[in-house]
Amino acid sequence: MYTVVLDWLEERLRSGEISVGDKLPGERHLAEEFGISRASVREAIRILDAMGLVRSSTGSGPNAGAIVISDPSAALGWALRMHVATRSLPVRDLVQTRLLLETQSAHEAATAAETPERAAALGRAAELVEAMEDPDLPDERFHAADAQFHILLASLAGNMVVETIMSSLRQATIGYVQETVAGLEDWPRVRRTLQQHHREILLATQERRGEDAAAALQNHITWFFGHSAAARHEDDRHD
Amino acid sequence: MYTVVLDWLEERLRSGEISVGDKLPGERHLAEEFGISRASVREAIRILDAMGLVRSSTGSGPNAGAIVISDPSAALGWALRMHVATRSLPVRDLVQTRLLLETQSAHEAATAAETPERAAALGRAAELVEAMEDPDLPDERFHAADAQFHILLASLAGNMVVETIMSSLRQATIGYVQETVAGLEDWPRVRRTLQQHHREILLATQERRGEDAAAALQNHITWFFGHSAAARHEDDRHD
Repeated sequence: MYTVVLDWLEERLRSGEISVGDKLPGERHLAEEFGISRASVREAIRILDAMGLVRSSTGSGPNAGAIVISDPSAALGWALRMHVATRSLPVRDLVQTRLLLETQSAHEAATAAETPERAAALGRAAELVEAMEDPDLPDERFHAADAQFHILLASLAGNMVVETIMSSLRQATIGYVQETVAGLEDWPRVRRTLQQHHREILLATQERRGEDAAAALQNHITWFFGHSAAARHEDDRHD
Repeated sequence: MYTVVLDWLEERLRSGEISVGDKLPGERHLAEEFGISRASVREAIRILDAMGLVRSSTGSGPNAGAIVISDPSAALGWALRMHVATRSLPVRDLVQTRLLLETQSAHEAATAAETPERAAALGRAAELVEAMEDPDLPDERFHAADAQFHILLASLAGNMVVETIMSSLRQATIGYVQETVAGLEDWPRVRRTLQQHHREILLATQERRGEDAAAALQNHITWFFGHSAAARHEDDRHD
């Protein structure tokens, strides 16, 4: 029943009749249009919401109705995380995939054409590294800055799909990373090492040394997951 | 409201209390357990269904209830396709990402350890190439065999996440490929060229020539999308 709404939206998006920012017709309108129940329309809207394709508004006034957005990373990240939870996607394979994509992407980011956008992103990346330098920065903010730093670098490579997948993989492994970090006795030392890696990656990118940026990125991810796997003493069900 | 069901399932999957193949409690039970409406439970189940995490059964007898599965590719492929439709993910970036992952994966597939599984997959790949050799094979079956061939090779590389993403990217671009092929005046010649590429990729993989397998794969994807883009005469809104 509800799939008719999904197919209808895909067709309208493809033809350009509906674009990001537009409001979908209300539930009642769609239900009448397709001859289905309002509950079925609502199920379709929930699916679109979960996939990062609409933002549902609350309320039922004249301004009610879902707005079309396009925020694939959060949705794909959640889906990947759930499939990791089912044991069908091993954490090791997620990490290997991040390595493959981020290493390639670091190389491209370092050697990308000089543009005002690149300069702005590198400036922001330098600020994040500077913020992470502070040993008093709470762990939670360190992790947030860390994630932002990687996503910024990925954006420099200029491939929206790689950026989306990298961001999704990162979101899919956040739980794993946080659990791991919480269990590390030597976390303060680990944090200093990670931060040293960030400085190396940033410097190589600023100085347009592609091979070095890729190698530093590879070392960063490999070192962290190797260290965590060792610390977990074969204790991890996913690995 | 419905998110409580999603969070509950994630926790149960992570702890191992619920696994693939298990049946979820019925709608009424879940609604009572969480103090939410049956409509909200149904919305959660629909989302899980759309994400390839459950297969809903029809009917309402004692056997009703959703079965936990894990089929990420179809769900992620659909989501990527929808985000391509919103214009937030350019087709060009999808193709570049496929290139990056499939090239790497072709190299690994060619050099992977000899196992009975590898021999079986290569045997199946050879059958597919053989089937595509027949000029009378209908186009639809040619495309299906083509897709299966690529997914089989990807599986040889042994990374479930890369395999899932490649399969999702492929599903996200199927519509584009079919439209393109339908518009190509010289499709019979294109089909022969693609088939020649398949033979080269297969041979390099069988003979464990990693570099050659990767180069043949790269040439295959680049050639097809380059040729289609030229044929489309800048006519494509996504590219």
